[in-house]
Amino acid sequence: MSDLKKIFEEIGQLVQSIRDGALASYIPELANVNPQQFAMAVVTVDGECVSFGDDQSLFTLQSTSKPFTYGLALEEHGEAFVHSRIGVEPSGEAFNSIIELEKKTHRPFNPMINSGAIAVANMIQDKANIQREQRVLNLFSELAGRKLDYNREVFSSEKKTAHRNRAIAHLLRHFEVIGDDIEESLDLYFKQCSINANVKDLAAMAATLANSGVQPLTQKRIYKEENITRMISLMFTCGMYDSAGTWAYTVGIPAKSGVSGALFGVVPGKMGIACFSPLIDGHGHSLRGVCAIREFAKKMGLNIFK
Amino acid sequence: MSDLKKIFEEIGQLVQSIRDGALASYIPELANVNPQQFAMAVVTVDGECVSFGDDQSLFTLQSTSKPFTYGLALEEHGEAFVHSRIGVEPSGEAFNSIIELEKKTHRPFNPMINSGAIAVANMIQDKANIQREQRVLNLFSELAGRKLDYNREVFSSEKKTAHRNRAIAHLLRHFEVIGDDIEESLDLYFKQCSINANVKDLAAMAATLANSGVQPLTQKRIYKEENITRMISLMFTCGMYDSAGTWAYTVGIPAKSGVSGALFGVVPGKMGIACFSPLIDGHGHSLRGVCAIREFAKKMGLNIFK
Amino acid sequence: MSDLKKIFEEIGQLVQSIRDGALASYIPELANVNPQQFAMAVVTVDGECVSFGDDQSLFTLQSTSKPFTYGLALEEHGEAFVHSRIGVEPSGEAFNSIIELEKKTHRPFNPMINSGAIAVANMIQDKANIQREQRVLNLFSELAGRKLDYNREVFSSEKKTAHRNRAIAHLLRHFEVIGDDIEESLDLYFKQCSINANVKDLAAMAATLANSGVQPLTQKRIYKEENITRMISLMFTCGMYDSAGTWAYTVGIPAKSGVSGALFGVVPGKMGIACFSPLIDGHGHSLRGVCAIREFAKKMGLNIFK
Amino acid sequence: MSDLKKIFEEIGQLVQSIRDGALASYIPELANVNPQQFAMAVVTVDGECVSFGDDQSLFTLQSTSKPFTYGLALEEHGEAFVHSRIGVEPSGEAFNSIIELEKKTHRPFNPMINSGAIAVANMIQDKANIQREQRVLNLFSELAGRKLDYNREVFSSEKKTAHRNRAIAHLLRHFEVIGDDIEESLDLYFKQCSINANVKDLAAMAATLANSGVQPLTQKRIYKEENITRMISLMFTCGMYDSAGTWAYTVGIPAKSGVSGALFGVVPGKMGIACFSPLIDGHGHSLRGVCAIREFAKKMGLNIFK
Repeated sequence: MSDLKKIFEEIGQLVQSIRDGALASYIPELANVNPQQFAMAVVTVDGECVSFGDDQSLFTLQSTSKPFTYGLALEEHGEAFVHSRIGVEPSGEAFNSIIELEKKTHRPFNPMINSGAIAVANMIQDKANIQREQRVLNLFSELAGRKLDYNREVFSSEKKTAHRNRAIAHLLRHFEVIGDDIEESLDLYFKQCSINANVKDLAAMAATLANSGVQPLTQKRIYKEENITRMISLMFTCGMYDSAGTWAYTVGIPAKSGVSGALFGVVPGKMGIACFSPLIDGHGHSLRGVCAIREFAKKMGLNIFK
Repeated sequence: MSDLKKIFEEIGQLVQSIRDGALASYIPELANVNPQQFAMAVVTVDGECVSFGDDQSLFTLQSTSKPFTYGLALEEHGEAFVHSRIGVEPSGEAFNSIIELEKKTHRPFNPMINSGAIAVANMIQDKANIQREQRVLNLFSELAGRKLDYNREVFSSEKKTAHRNRAIAHLLRHFEVIGDDIEESLDLYFKQCSINANVKDLAAMAATLANSGVQPLTQKRIYKEENITRMISLMFTCGMYDSAGTWAYTVGIPAKSGVSGALFGVVPGKMGIACFSPLIDGHGHSLRGVCAIREFAKKMGLNIFK
Repeated sequence: MSDLKKIFEEIGQLVQSIRDGALASYIPELANVNPQQFAMAVVTVDGECVSFGDDQSLFTLQSTSKPFTYGLALEEHGEAFVHSRIGVEPSGEAFNSIIELEKKTHRPFNPMINSGAIAVANMIQDKANIQREQRVLNLFSELAGRKLDYNREVFSSEKKTAHRNRAIAHLLRHFEVIGDDIEESLDLYFKQCSINANVKDLAAMAATLANSGVQPLTQKRIYKEENITRMISLMFTCGMYDSAGTWAYTVGIPAKSGVSGALFGVVPGKMGIACFSPLIDGHGHSLRGVCAIREFAKKMGLNIFK
Repeated sequence: MSDLKKIFEEIGQLVQSIRDGALASYIPELANVNPQQFAMAVVTVDGECVSFGDDQSLFTLQSTSKPFTYGLALEEHGEAFVHSRIGVEPSGEAFNSIIELEKKTHRPFNPMINSGAIAVANMIQDKANIQREQRVLNLFSELAGRKLDYNREVFSSEKKTAHRNRAIAHLLRHFEVIGDDIEESLDLYFKQCSINANVKDLAAMAATLANSGVQPLTQKRIYKEENITRMISLMFTCGMYDSAGTWAYTVGIPAKSGVSGALFGVVPGKMGIACFSPLIDGHGHSLRGVCAIREFAKKMGLNIFK
């Protein structure tokens, strides 16, 4: 593990020179962060944790939350139901593509893009007297291994300005992918995106996927093994939007990014890796984060096709 | 004018054999009409009126209202302002295309499609203590030459089920084509679509355009002459959606259709023509109406390129 | 007619200030012209001709030839046959759009875009011992009222570099819009595009359309009246590519442009107007030509919807 | 290995009931085969070979040849050069999509679709007095571990009818992705597609990729290890065209299909799997082949994310 520390330091040096990119501007609250932050962490399936840089900084999960709520929908409703409403094909579209639904079926292409994730949120129901919002917060707390909360400022900032996501939700309603609880589904979606975590939390979530669904620090099983396969398959083909092919080609591990600058990768059977650095590129990925995970995967030989 | 009666009778015979098409289903209330109705009317620029068939039947204007509110926006704000937010190019898309905005400018393609018409509705403001909804109702009453009202059942049916139009409005808000009064703009749009008229009313509206903006029965000027040119230009290139080219090629007069089965054409300097017959084709045009106006234009030699 | 001279001079002054645009670069030979040239001409249906500027300069017709060969195909095969292979809808695409065919029918959208014009060329056959290339040259000579020839340098320059048009032709063959005489059809198309004319010739061609098919100088009937309606209808909706809507809205007369900087308009029953000025905009239209015809139409009140 | 025999037999039973699909019709010669054929084979990295069914039947490789010539281009020119002309992103388009190039770069999306494979063929050059066609034939012979030849009837059938591929090649020339040797590049592409092989040959080719580039029967190194990673990465994200996501989700191994009914998968470090059964679905994949490899992967637990 001391090797990891050293590798992190080298990568930390390397990414210093990356000063391009911009803060996500479309959620006003996201623009209020120190853009030069950089953090990296690994949690292994054995429960070891190594971190580097601004590893205490909190960020909102944004789209990195999508694979996890998708998994929750699988657990709750089974694959057949979930995929009667959402596809499994990459859309070939940018993260900020307006509103793309499969032309024949009028379903979202996959659960990793906004339309798919809103459809997933719509599936999560209250259960055993626990409201669905609390259920989602509980899920992410279990994944992190500690109690998380959501960022009320980001939530309300997102809720106020999310005209595109609201358009998507109404279109999903039009095609009967979701029901009449449009605002409730959007609220749940905005809340999952607004959950505050640090880079070690995100690495622990990733490690749960690497560990076949069992959180490696608490040893609690969160997902069935078969659902893990589904989650990381879709991360691999769809998680990085219209640069998924480039990511698969150059890095070769299932990953998911969020516009807050969060990015995580899963190395099945080995570890979860997470980065946080808020300056993002035109695809919506953290510039330093992409570089850091690519270098880390290269140095450690993590490409799944290698 | 007795010739017109005879031509209408011949056309009335001819369209009897057309029994294809379907009632518009996406506004539930629209499906509650007698599908076999057929009505036709002409109002000349001299104020003569000839009608045929179910000429007392009321129908809602639906998209046939679009050119008229577009004209109102021109009168109120001037061309430069209106077209800073809405384009003048055909979209090449079907009437029920999801949500198409110009790719570079993110504006609606033109005021004849839903997105453009919602953007137009957003521009109409209260004025001199008259609320915008009343202003629009007044406009159509003046165009018809008699007091019109809107159909409350259709309005509330449309308001409840218009998930796609609501999606469009939120997307327009996202791109800052419209402001925060989203629901108010939609309400106004649904109301203009829900105005009840008969075929003679619609022919009188059309005749107002044919008569350079002066209503031929009341002699009241409703639009400036220069705005009439704009309105009928856009009807010609964009009024019939993705069959605009076929219509221009085979009929050759500016026209606009609505999913209620309303259809009207403008012969500048001569007359307005209107039809009503509720069975519509895949483009959203009245099947009998299209046939009737095409035959009428042929018999009367009305093609503007002839 | 002395008024026309004066209007031309004013417009000639006005367009002096337009210095944007570029020479068409994709046919190397087209780049070898004096970019500052400007010429304008009108031929009335009574056979009067007024011209201005570089009215002796020869240019190649390029896409301005398309309506005329389309008319020849109509004369030769009738409307039904021609439009079994080519549509009548605007494509909504730029002049240099790759290769767009109607999605359902796999036909060219209309005869005014390259794919449609190549399909038209494919229809022109040898007849009565006159080869098809000679027939086309004869047609344009009759339209101009004097013997024209084609520019061999431009023809062979175009033939050598026309990879996109060759791609289109093979795709048309794939969808069985054209037969196996792919190269012959392309040759014919390149030849019609390479015909040399001056601005008075082009105005005379346009005046033939304005005069219902009878060349106004020679009084020879070239097209049937009913085919003229078809030709100018399609020029109106499709002749200016993806700015057809803007042209119809701001100018309002049927027109066609070519990348050599040629541009002509038809005022039915009145006159043909032509311009030549080689600097073109991103739509492929002569910048000075567009301005000149727009101003001319405004001063003379030629908008067909006015 | 006796287990494999048994599994093959079970799968052979299972696929008997699949009787949908059609023979590829667009290459006339491909329609002359017995549609009920079914064959399956595995070659392990240790050089063991098990086969089943019509394992002596020859079929043409068609698109299953694409990963292998792509690898040859990588070996010959290096990654940087190859991917200056061809991308690495899935196109989201069907196997028979007309002609899709990346919009910004005008390059083929990836080497697994026709445009990319033609661009690859264009890169293969004569070398050391061996003509490029012979080089390609040598490559596939080495991959199979025995001398292969190409099917002259299929080659000339394809050459005669390949209007779409010819259109693609001219478009690639237009965008300067390939040079002037258009016909030569197409000939090479048609030849690689026309190579005759049986299911054991194809399994041996696949096993070479599974074995990091060393043919497991002859022990000859054919590709560098780093190029193998590239080849199977692109097979995984792009090899199954617009059903690549579904394949990754349900099967989870890199694969490639051809319209002759050939299909192969690679299990890195373990084995190559091949199927042949000529009835194909709308994506161009062998119906029985898809079912067979999916079942085989499930029974053997081969999903890379498992």
